[in-house]
Amino acid sequence: MTVRVGVIGTGWIGQEHIRRLTDTVTGAEVTAVTDIDAARAEEVAARTGARVHASAADLIAADDVDAVLVTSWGPTHAEHVLGAIAAGKQVFCEKPLATTSEDCLRVVEAERAHGRRLVQVGFMRRYDVGYRQLKEVLSAGSIGAPLIVHCAHRNPTVPKSYTSHMAAQDTAVHEIDVLRWLLDDEIVSAQVITPRATSHRHEHLRDPQIMLFETTNGVRIDLEVFVNCQYGYDIQCETVGETGLARLPDPAAVAVRTGGTSGTAVLQDWQGRFVNAFDTEFREWIAGIAAGEEPSGPSAWDGYAATVITDAAVRSLESGGPVVSVDMKPRPVFYGGAV
Amino acid sequence: MTVRVGVIGTGWIGQEHIRRLTDTVTGAEVTAVTDIDAARAEEVAARTGARVHASAADLIAADDVDAVLVTSWGPTHAEHVLGAIAAGKQVFCEKPLATTSEDCLRVVEAERAHGRRLVQVGFMRRYDVGYRQLKEVLSAGSIGAPLIVHCAHRNPTVPKSYTSHMAAQDTAVHEIDVLRWLLDDEIVSAQVITPRATSHRHEHLRDPQIMLFETTNGVRIDLEVFVNCQYGYDIQCETVGETGLARLPDPAAVAVRTGGTSGTAVLQDWQGRFVNAFDTEFREWIAGIAAGEEPSGPSAWDGYAATVITDAAVRSLESGGPVVSVDMKPRPVFYGGAV
Amino acid sequence: MTVRVGVIGTGWIGQEHIRRLTDTVTGAEVTAVTDIDAARAEEVAARTGARVHASAADLIAADDVDAVLVTSWGPTHAEHVLGAIAAGKQVFCEKPLATTSEDCLRVVEAERAHGRRLVQVGFMRRYDVGYRQLKEVLSAGSIGAPLIVHCAHRNPTVPKSYTSHMAAQDTAVHEIDVLRWLLDDEIVSAQVITPRATSHRHEHLRDPQIMLFETTNGVRIDLEVFVNCQYGYDIQCETVGETGLARLPDPAAVAVRTGGTSGTAVLQDWQGRFVNAFDTEFREWIAGIAAGEEPSGPSAWDGYAATVITDAAVRSLESGGPVVSVDMKPRPVFYGGAV
Amino acid sequence: MTVRVGVIGTGWIGQEHIRRLTDTVTGAEVTAVTDIDAARAEEVAARTGARVHASAADLIAADDVDAVLVTSWGPTHAEHVLGAIAAGKQVFCEKPLATTSEDCLRVVEAERAHGRRLVQVGFMRRYDVGYRQLKEVLSAGSIGAPLIVHCAHRNPTVPKSYTSHMAAQDTAVHEIDVLRWLLDDEIVSAQVITPRATSHRHEHLRDPQIMLFETTNGVRIDLEVFVNCQYGYDIQCETVGETGLARLPDPAAVAVRTGGTSGTAVLQDWQGRFVNAFDTEFREWIAGIAAGEEPSGPSAWDGYAATVITDAAVRSLESGGPVVSVDMKPRPVFYGGAV
Repeated sequence: MTVRVGVIGTGWIGQEHIRRLTDTVTGAEVTAVTDIDAARAEEVAARTGARVHASAADLIAADDVDAVLVTSWGPTHAEHVLGAIAAGKQVFCEKPLATTSEDCLRVVEAERAHGRRLVQVGFMRRYDVGYRQLKEVLSAGSIGAPLIVHCAHRNPTVPKSYTSHMAAQDTAVHEIDVLRWLLDDEIVSAQVITPRATSHRHEHLRDPQIMLFETTNGVRIDLEVFVNCQYGYDIQCETVGETGLARLPDPAAVAVRTGGTSGTAVLQDWQGRFVNAFDTEFREWIAGIAAGEEPSGPSAWDGYAATVITDAAVRSLESGGPVVSVDMKPRPVFYGGAV
Repeated sequence: MTVRVGVIGTGWIGQEHIRRLTDTVTGAEVTAVTDIDAARAEEVAARTGARVHASAADLIAADDVDAVLVTSWGPTHAEHVLGAIAAGKQVFCEKPLATTSEDCLRVVEAERAHGRRLVQVGFMRRYDVGYRQLKEVLSAGSIGAPLIVHCAHRNPTVPKSYTSHMAAQDTAVHEIDVLRWLLDDEIVSAQVITPRATSHRHEHLRDPQIMLFETTNGVRIDLEVFVNCQYGYDIQCETVGETGLARLPDPAAVAVRTGGTSGTAVLQDWQGRFVNAFDTEFREWIAGIAAGEEPSGPSAWDGYAATVITDAAVRSLESGGPVVSVDMKPRPVFYGGAV
Repeated sequence: MTVRVGVIGTGWIGQEHIRRLTDTVTGAEVTAVTDIDAARAEEVAARTGARVHASAADLIAADDVDAVLVTSWGPTHAEHVLGAIAAGKQVFCEKPLATTSEDCLRVVEAERAHGRRLVQVGFMRRYDVGYRQLKEVLSAGSIGAPLIVHCAHRNPTVPKSYTSHMAAQDTAVHEIDVLRWLLDDEIVSAQVITPRATSHRHEHLRDPQIMLFETTNGVRIDLEVFVNCQYGYDIQCETVGETGLARLPDPAAVAVRTGGTSGTAVLQDWQGRFVNAFDTEFREWIAGIAAGEEPSGPSAWDGYAATVITDAAVRSLESGGPVVSVDMKPRPVFYGGAV
Repeated sequence: MTVRVGVIGTGWIGQEHIRRLTDTVTGAEVTAVTDIDAARAEEVAARTGARVHASAADLIAADDVDAVLVTSWGPTHAEHVLGAIAAGKQVFCEKPLATTSEDCLRVVEAERAHGRRLVQVGFMRRYDVGYRQLKEVLSAGSIGAPLIVHCAHRNPTVPKSYTSHMAAQDTAVHEIDVLRWLLDDEIVSAQVITPRATSHRHEHLRDPQIMLFETTNGVRIDLEVFVNCQYGYDIQCETVGETGLARLPDPAAVAVRTGGTSGTAVLQDWQGRFVNAFDTEFREWIAGIAAGEEPSGPSAWDGYAATVITDAAVRSLESGGPVVSVDMKPRPVFYGGAV
């Protein structure tokens, strides 16, 4: 059985995923596309053989659309996801699930009302081989109960449109999701402190930032977000447990000794770093649909949690760095919670 | 366009590749299978929806077979490959291309007579990300002209059926192919010397062995083949050039500090080590066929060269370790040579 | 010229340094010892040929004592150092310079009144090859202006006598001193947060602790102090600058691949980790005295600064984790300051 | 007790060791020097307070010389060592012990006749922390019986005076000695093969060279000697045993990430690489003399063995690369042998 996917939003990331579903992932076909820029949708459709729909609603309703992929502008995500839920179709929504926690909750409520999971949110790190190895080490108890996590998220540069809030909302959000999953624990407070700023940044931007999180179990996380580090794209994650520590591996790279240095190249962008994770993410999503299963990836609840936690971080940054409690509803039983 | 593949030989490796073509590689479909064990062929067909053919000849001739995959017993390879060439169909042949250099040459001659490349031989290392990075470093001139290559090929253990000759024929053959490609150079002599034997081996087996090769350009290669090294599956390759050296990376692995040791796990089998290389190998093979291109992977000539070089190594081992010249025909222009 | 050293305090660390001055460092001789435990002093003297003095005052005054080494109980340090200053003799004082900031200031004032530096405090990390390399990298501007420092100080276990305050006073104090020197910057605030406690600790002890420091230049330091980490003695220090990062190396160790793991042994105690630093520290101290120079190592002011900064950290720990300003006097011109 | 050392030969290496015995090693004093260049001897004496002797014979005979250090021109070594033996004084001879195996044997015979060990040869690698760790790993049986050793000895460049023979005599000789000691085994044959030559060499020089050795126990050693490798001074040694492998560590170095590369600096000369080994070598030599013990370092026999093994390597190189048996006398019981 081939899963027929309709794609809402044919910008850069939408095109990336269309290419992925077409060329890399087996068992999928992109049959429908739509975009607020109709010309762009036409152009993408022409290349892929998909049909263009005039609206997201039409696309969601189409008979030849088994599942929906939302890669449109962030503020429109919630509406499209709600539309897919209403149609009873599985929907993969690129992060964020919604731009406000209220909208995230509306999705959560709609899905609960539907009674089965339909929504998956695009946090791809859970599909990275290194993070999966790390989770295995933790689950095996090889380093005992986790106590501390040291992380860094570094980009070589960011465009001028990148604002201080985006350090939490667009950048740290990946660590927030993957750490909740890695630790199987919830984040209850956030704090952002601002070191001396790098001179290699746009005037308006606080960079670097250090984010501190605490979990229900008392695990302390420190996350350096440094988006103009100049030297490369570099993701670090070290978990310290009661009897040892485990560290996310750097990508394998040829070691070269020349000119007085022994070194390896550092990647320069996240696409190269996480391309395999994206592939696996979609491979598992499609396979699940083909098998008639509910999605096993990041849920609407995870999308909600990420939003309220990043909200707390942004509030701390805006207020000059206090510890801010995460204002999260109790997790419903439907999402594995106690309530 | 979907490439319809017929598979000759449904043993373990055949089933692996059928699964790969079905689940992992897009644009392919296994439409036909055959095996000398008809029951096994039926069983595999039942799982995949392929049609069972009574003979390889029937399968090759079938209208719904665009390309042929040969994963049968080694001594039958040449016959099936020749059959596919006669039918004008592309054929992927698992190593070896043939068990004798004479049979390899028959394939080479048949393909030349056909006038277009149809044959690809299954040397998957050329598709490994690490080797490809290494080739890029060499091609970029980052370490100058290569002078020496140090290699090791270690397996934790081998079954009792593994004989001393197989160290060259089944094990070193991977380095032989990948080094010819990496260096863009030809191997002209081989020598095998035998260190003190490990006590962790079957009585009849010479293990470890050190193989020394020389190339047309005078590059010297030393290759340790140690198939009962106990500790893991470990592939090492270090190229020393005029201005530096470059080393194949170990697979990325979580670093763990616990119990007084800082360490990473070593892989235990080649499947884990080269699974991505196998996927890429078939992905590129299928994409080439779909695009109407000749195969770009290891050619019939490469299959012939690997066989005559391993023959030289085996002759050195049998004769107590002298340097043995490789008895290779001049490379035809058809395969990029001067003759 | 041989520098004749009198040693006040012949406990474990005193004996270590006597052995070092006798066997490892050239140009020194231990001519005098004293201890509140007279029998122990006699025993040490018998082994080394030193003369036993009934009191520290006698030892300091002795004609055959050119310089004084204070390795007695912490609360007596200030008195002995003041005595040496009064006698106009150079004095090496093991950390702490004094147990209160008031006593540290008394030493500072006495030395200023004397008009030449006489005091060196025993912070040995500044003499570690790795830290010195790190300082060179920073000084060369290879990573730009420092913005953030990530540190960890881990011991496998501590005895029951180790209290929560000692995490700052005895353990973190080494990072506090070496980071002030490494960054050539002053620490202006301290904060201690307490992650989930390890179960491998004595009941009364907060372990691990995370200490956060800020410097005059806005550099943010996070320091994990984990003194029951079980797996080994492990010192980490990574400085993130505007254009790159530099990391303190782990001690060189033989890499072993066996039993499915590729690993190196982790040291189990600080003696092994810093033995060379101790040797260099005393070699340079003795050489300076022999050359008639003022001490170039950590000064009385550095001893004072370390004490007031650890005081701030302890206050934060006691108060539940607020940011505590460091209550430091302006640095006198005598010690390189502006006042 | 201070050991009074007389130094024959005050060239660069002699001055290095004089500085070492004066400034770094405790318990030693250089009381006498001599050199064929009398002016140079005077100059060195003036700096150190040593007395100048008109001849080596005078120096050896002097009452204030307890032990002799030979750092003169290689061809004179044997004569001075024999003189010291005749005087019954311990003598440290920089490599080589003698420039011919016959002269080495004369020293061996003279020492045997004397009846106690007096001679130590300056192979400093046995004192390197890394090699000592490696020997501990082997001795502990952590990797089982050794089967193969892979080595590399690389220098960035050599002066024009360096000839092809020196690759064995001056460079590989260090590996030859340290591997005999590491493996506790004897080398029985040598072979030199010559890869494509680097263009970064003087016309007359074969560079790189690959040396192959076999030991009594059948261990096979491959040693790459590459003295114009351009990128740095780099010493590699990996021992493969029945159950694992162990690798000499690279020197600890600060890891820097900047400009798209994660790297460490490679040392550029052997002085930096082995400075600690030299210090330990002399510290142990002096301590042994002070304790009235025979020397425990490389013996006259080791000096003889190194010479006959390098002779075999040179003969192989001159003859175009055949395997050459090492023409070694049976090891006398006096040196731990069976004869």
